[in-house]
Amino acid sequence: MPSTPIEFYFDFSSPYGYLASERIDSIGAEFDCIVDWRPMLLGVIFKTTGQSPLVGQTLRGPYHLRDMQRSARKHGIKFALPDGFPFASIYACRIFYWLDRSDPAAARAFAHAIYRAAFAQNRPVAEAEDAISVAVELGHGRAAVTAGMQEPAVKERLRDETQNAMHKGVFGSPFLIIDGEPFWGNDRLSEVREWLQTGGW
Amino acid sequence: MPSTPIEFYFDFSSPYGYLASERIDSIGAEFDCIVDWRPMLLGVIFKTTGQSPLVGQTLRGPYHLRDMQRSARKHGIKFALPDGFPFASIYACRIFYWLDRSDPAAARAFAHAIYRAAFAQNRPVAEAEDAISVAVELGHGRAAVTAGMQEPAVKERLRDETQNAMHKGVFGSPFLIIDGEPFWGNDRLSEVREWLQTGGW
Repeated sequence: MPSTPIEFYFDFSSPYGYLASERIDSIGAEFDCIVDWRPMLLGVIFKTTGQSPLVGQTLRGPYHLRDMQRSARKHGIKFALPDGFPFASIYACRIFYWLDRSDPAAARAFAHAIYRAAFAQNRPVAEAEDAISVAVELGHGRAAVTAGMQEPAVKERLRDETQNAMHKGVFGSPFLIIDGEPFWGNDRLSEVREWLQTGGW
Repeated sequence: MPSTPIEFYFDFSSPYGYLASERIDSIGAEFDCIVDWRPMLLGVIFKTTGQSPLVGQTLRGPYHLRDMQRSARKHGIKFALPDGFPFASIYACRIFYWLDRSDPAAARAFAHAIYRAAFAQNRPVAEAEDAISVAVELGHGRAAVTAGMQEPAVKERLRDETQNAMHKGVFGSPFLIIDGEPFWGNDRLSEVREWLQTGGW
């Protein structure tokens, strides 16, 4: 019997999403769970919830900057906020969903590459050309990516995934759902692991 | 050499503060750390940060209600949101600081009693008379408590503690500081434990 998938919602411009992305696959593998990577546009969800990005907030911003660095150190993950932070993630999302349609593994590899470009290599990924270059480096044809990411069906998929995420209660990044059970935040990955290990409580 | 104290900031109306209050003393005891209990008025800090109470928020509210219950179950802590939630915590804070001046252990016992009254017994604690009754049940004289909590020095202490907390970066409840290192949230208690165990990372 296949295990319940881990639904992994994230925004490509989310530092905590990046930190989770470096650990979630090994947690999935440990419990033989498929990890269902689902990038979405958190800015769209923030319009409904009235939230704003963490880093600019009074008191919360400085704390979370410190905490991101501390969390990265703890798990040995290379991390720095890129110069252009916060950045737009729509083009990276569209390329992801274009790849995902025919090859989910390629989409996941692209997601890792975007996250590492932004948060480990301080490379810009916000503009369409930036995001396309990351895909090209993974072996995808520039013309195919450029055309694919502009397909109406791809744009619609991203809108749908973002709306579906919100309907499932997703309000932050990363956000994980296991058999309907929601876990918000990179700092809940160890709890996700416990949940899978014990079957919940 | 005495260990670094654990500064434990909380608001009496904070469910996650209550959950942390049931575990923090044993973590302190494990590492021979004094736990410095510091109730404050989170509503005052929210005026600076522009935050609002969690439970009323779109998407975040329902998630956190579920998470509070799940976190309580995990640690075997009796928990339910009281009927009058959210409630004012100023009178409980004033009694705490009046007790704390002469007997910190009595203040801590009172804090436990207030938290348990609210979140385990569904008792009102918001009004002055409610909070006084909790102190009286612990053996304190009603007249002394009533007079003490109205002393200008006690009111000033609460204002100062709230301002000091904010100056240290406290923006939520619970919020723990160990030798300048800040940890926000009940879900970071296990990390606080790791930090004490390892000396940090």
